[in-house]
Amino acid sequence: VTIVGLGLIGGSIALAARQRAGATVTGFDPDQGAGAAAQARGALDHLAASLAEAVGDAQVALLAAPVDALPGLVAEVLDLAGPDCVVSDVGSVKRAIVAANPDPRFVGGHPLAGAETAGIEQARPDLFVGATWYLTPVARTEGILYERLHRLLRSLGARPAAIDAETHDRLLAVVSHLPHVLANVLVAQAAGALGGGDERLPATGPSFRDATRVAGAPSSIWTSIYLGNRDVLVGEIDRAIERLGEIRATLAAGEPGAVSAWNDCAARDRRRLLEAGLAGGEHDALHELRASVPNRPGVVAQLALELGRAGVNIVDMALYPAPDMSEGVIALWIAGAEAAEQAQRLIAGLGFPVASA
Amino acid sequence: VTIVGLGLIGGSIALAARQRAGATVTGFDPDQGAGAAAQARGALDHLAASLAEAVGDAQVALLAAPVDALPGLVAEVLDLAGPDCVVSDVGSVKRAIVAANPDPRFVGGHPLAGAETAGIEQARPDLFVGATWYLTPVARTEGILYERLHRLLRSLGARPAAIDAETHDRLLAVVSHLPHVLANVLVAQAAGALGGGDERLPATGPSFRDATRVAGAPSSIWTSIYLGNRDVLVGEIDRAIERLGEIRATLAAGEPGAVSAWNDCAARDRRRLLEAGLAGGEHDALHELRASVPNRPGVVAQLALELGRAGVNIVDMALYPAPDMSEGVIALWIAGAEAAEQAQRLIAGLGFPVASA
Repeated sequence: VTIVGLGLIGGSIALAARQRAGATVTGFDPDQGAGAAAQARGALDHLAASLAEAVGDAQVALLAAPVDALPGLVAEVLDLAGPDCVVSDVGSVKRAIVAANPDPRFVGGHPLAGAETAGIEQARPDLFVGATWYLTPVARTEGILYERLHRLLRSLGARPAAIDAETHDRLLAVVSHLPHVLANVLVAQAAGALGGGDERLPATGPSFRDATRVAGAPSSIWTSIYLGNRDVLVGEIDRAIERLGEIRATLAAGEPGAVSAWNDCAARDRRRLLEAGLAGGEHDALHELRASVPNRPGVVAQLALELGRAGVNIVDMALYPAPDMSEGVIALWIAGAEAAEQAQRLIAGLGFPVASA
Repeated sequence: VTIVGLGLIGGSIALAARQRAGATVTGFDPDQGAGAAAQARGALDHLAASLAEAVGDAQVALLAAPVDALPGLVAEVLDLAGPDCVVSDVGSVKRAIVAANPDPRFVGGHPLAGAETAGIEQARPDLFVGATWYLTPVARTEGILYERLHRLLRSLGARPAAIDAETHDRLLAVVSHLPHVLANVLVAQAAGALGGGDERLPATGPSFRDATRVAGAPSSIWTSIYLGNRDVLVGEIDRAIERLGEIRATLAAGEPGAVSAWNDCAARDRRRLLEAGLAGGEHDALHELRASVPNRPGVVAQLALELGRAGVNIVDMALYPAPDMSEGVIALWIAGAEAAEQAQRLIAGLGFPVASA
């Protein structure tokens, strides 16, 4: 297995391929420092000095690079690779790279894991355990090579899922690319509302922080994602503008029933989408609990320990501190009604007010 | 002190006024069950049977009700109250109520705490400790009464801050009301993109969940907030549409430099806004750490305990599970560079890969 590009994703693939799949891994990165760091982390059997050396007679070549660099890199690797080498990539946008490389040896790929951080320091062999790993085979794809790639991804712990490139890019536009755009708009708007000077944002509670957590994600990764999916993303932005225009008109008309109906619909959509998305059909529905706690060191620990001892796993949690950070509300998401009830009893037993949300 | 409306906010004021301020508290709620529950929680010295009985000869009357019900309720209470009673409210929108009640005894108010959940069950006496509590005095406000209200809020643990109603409504529109609208738009759009059937949202990582956490907040509270601030909110929606149109044009033009510049600007805005907002000028700048951990019961506890033992407080945290929930990344926000460095050392000492983000 050859890995080209040894950042978070490439480095994690290398670690997983060696440790979980037992493969012999060769790595290459045009940045020599990144290559050396990957070697120091024990991610490689061999660090190649050139792309040609890296590809050599590899059976699988996985390419991790910014979205705009990938189509050319794939073509280069296909030129270097033998007839029995399957070539894949990890880019967040899939149509252009698939269209540019009509080769039976190429299968586009996209693991849904770890895209936000960058660098070999965060790499780990279990990054892909349980993660959906989209693959975009086409009619011309060589079956044997696809099966080999699929098997490798399973052995990394991932869940390979075939999807066509168009559907992939449409889905990712709405669940990832558009949320990033809206977060950017929101921080720009807040900054504009406050003026440029020393004026400070007031204590705002969690909604603003949650809504803007992904604002300004690294341009080194995101500029080419935005541009790589720009036609679909522009369409989603147009639809978002349309929806904003609709609620604008509803608000301007001032009819409470219409506003409530719009808001209730959002509540239903959110429940349906997040239960489906998080649970993925393989887990129980998520239940949200809200506990009021003092926000001192140790209290999250106490709560998590209590649930941990009882074998109740916290699927997701969010801590909303009071403005002086001295106390707050912990929201917990627990999979399954029974586990959620148990968690609620345990938390109440610790003396914290808790309610299911 | 008289409290009218005994849900989360009113109930917490009652508890705090009794336990922290040593006041004698009378309560009233048109819902007899809510009143009885507040009494059972020990929040009241006296449960009144009518609004007139509740107001009686109170020195302070605090009114907690949905935004659209408040202006009329304030007027009613002002009619019932004596000349030496200060009347205030806790509504999230301030212009209408201030304009409707030009009485020297009325001061509009809005505590930034706990607005998301509802019900006496979640009430607690320390809900307002450290919380900004906006007050909207006007030229005609009686100084002695304002000072009395201010003193009471301090004794509840809050930080009263005078603001004019226009500025208040403009700020809240951008940091709270618009984020709620965008979250609603996003879930509606995702639901639309998936179609109505059985199609499931793919595993999406944290960006979609963060962006939609406040989608569909309770209509019983939010419809009247949206409508109460609708002129300002409509203006903010218009500006959001304008900004979306701008980035749409930038994307369509396809210039990477312009996209990166837009995105980098969002990164700078976010840092400035959230450091200001969370730190509030009274704390150190926040530092973000990201640790990779297995997502099993106890691991959050272990990490939080380790930091807790060292006296490092976690200001905010977010857990990003892998799609199968078996592992993930914990993002931690720590106040102060020194504390953040210490936290990073401690987490690394536990064997988890950790980097400052």
